[in-house]
Amino acid sequence: MITLILAESSLELVPPDLARHPSITSHAQKLGRDASEILLDNSWHFAAMKGLRNEIKRGRPDLVHHSVLEAVSTPLYRRDGLNLFVHTIHDKVIRLGLQVRVPRSYHRFAGLVEKLYREGRVSAGDVLLEISDMTLSGILDEISPSAVIGLSSRGTPSSYAKVAADLPDGACIIVGGFQKGGFSEKTSGLLDSAYSVEDMPLEGHVVISRMLYEYEKTIFM
Amino acid sequence: MITLILAESSLELVPPDLARHPSITSHAQKLGRDASEILLDNSWHFAAMKGLRNEIKRGRPDLVHHSVLEAVSTPLYRRDGLNLFVHTIHDKVIRLGLQVRVPRSYHRFAGLVEKLYREGRVSAGDVLLEISDMTLSGILDEISPSAVIGLSSRGTPSSYAKVAADLPDGACIIVGGFQKGGFSEKTSGLLDSAYSVEDMPLEGHVVISRMLYEYEKTIFM
Repeated sequence: MITLILAESSLELVPPDLARHPSITSHAQKLGRDASEILLDNSWHFAAMKGLRNEIKRGRPDLVHHSVLEAVSTPLYRRDGLNLFVHTIHDKVIRLGLQVRVPRSYHRFAGLVEKLYREGRVSAGDVLLEISDMTLSGILDEISPSAVIGLSSRGTPSSYAKVAADLPDGACIIVGGFQKGGFSEKTSGLLDSAYSVEDMPLEGHVVISRMLYEYEKTIFM
Repeated sequence: MITLILAESSLELVPPDLARHPSITSHAQKLGRDASEILLDNSWHFAAMKGLRNEIKRGRPDLVHHSVLEAVSTPLYRRDGLNLFVHTIHDKVIRLGLQVRVPRSYHRFAGLVEKLYREGRVSAGDVLLEISDMTLSGILDEISPSAVIGLSSRGTPSSYAKVAADLPDGACIIVGGFQKGGFSEKTSGLLDSAYSVEDMPLEGHVVISRMLYEYEKTIFM
């Protein structure tokens, strides 16, 4: 079994100091919800997010959804060969252990994550999802992987197949859960190695799909 | 260059005879739209869709979104090596030629497709998208591919790498744009060959991602 961590993911509730911005209050009203209970989402809250600290790594719950779906749709996950975590930009961690049924519809995914933020735990199918305050270093301490491999356009040039062939059982792969920009120094400092597996920057979900596929080949074939 | 067609896709506007169902009128009201102008969506309209003819192939615009995103996020598409079409269950065809910027947020994707149904053409980035009344056979006549290959769990067992290695330039790959059930007889009759590339049924976006990745290897490496 290996672990995949989506790191520094652009997933968070609307921060208190933005909750009164018109682009956010009108969206919350449309949803019939309190602004402080909805996910920060650049596609709705663009005007409110202008100039926000670390803006390029925030408010893209859609990308987190695509990456999570990519991982849980693989035979590797469905055969219990993959342990999955979402680590957020503000050091929360969502554990998507095994056999979680992640909603395919975005609005259901958002509803699930919002409930998770509100209640701390929520059931998805037969499984209980949990969110906790935890750093990336904290999760790594807990799972103590045999190797921590980051995939990043700033890493050493390699290929999915090469990274997969060298991946020991118990390894942890780290992919960014954000749109742009590389890993923070704090994240980079936790990696045993970082590899660049494409010659153009690609979305996280593409990298996840290809990496898990090549890894499957080394164990299922 | 190759072509990918998402066939019999579960994408359509709310049909007239469902437009007065409470689950649909309340959703349309929430969106501030006319029921006849919104996409049929099983995650909102489940109650209205019960017993609908060919129900398992309808009302999953979320799956179509994932599959389209998967295709347009690949280096193959971004390097103009892939021509992409969405063929729907009711014989409409959306041409996603080259360099189309497909919205990552589902609500923006839905808005784009709804506008396309309403107006027939719509700009996405610098590109004009078009929808027309056309059968799968009609598109194939137009592009006259060198081979028409279907990927289906009912096909001859093979692998992505084998299918990719044998794919001639100008070939067309057909993947189902629906959740469950195989290709219709009409679609099956248009295939030169059908291959099963996984030993468990997988979502279309996973199959698309893996197939295009293996094809890229044969041309970029």
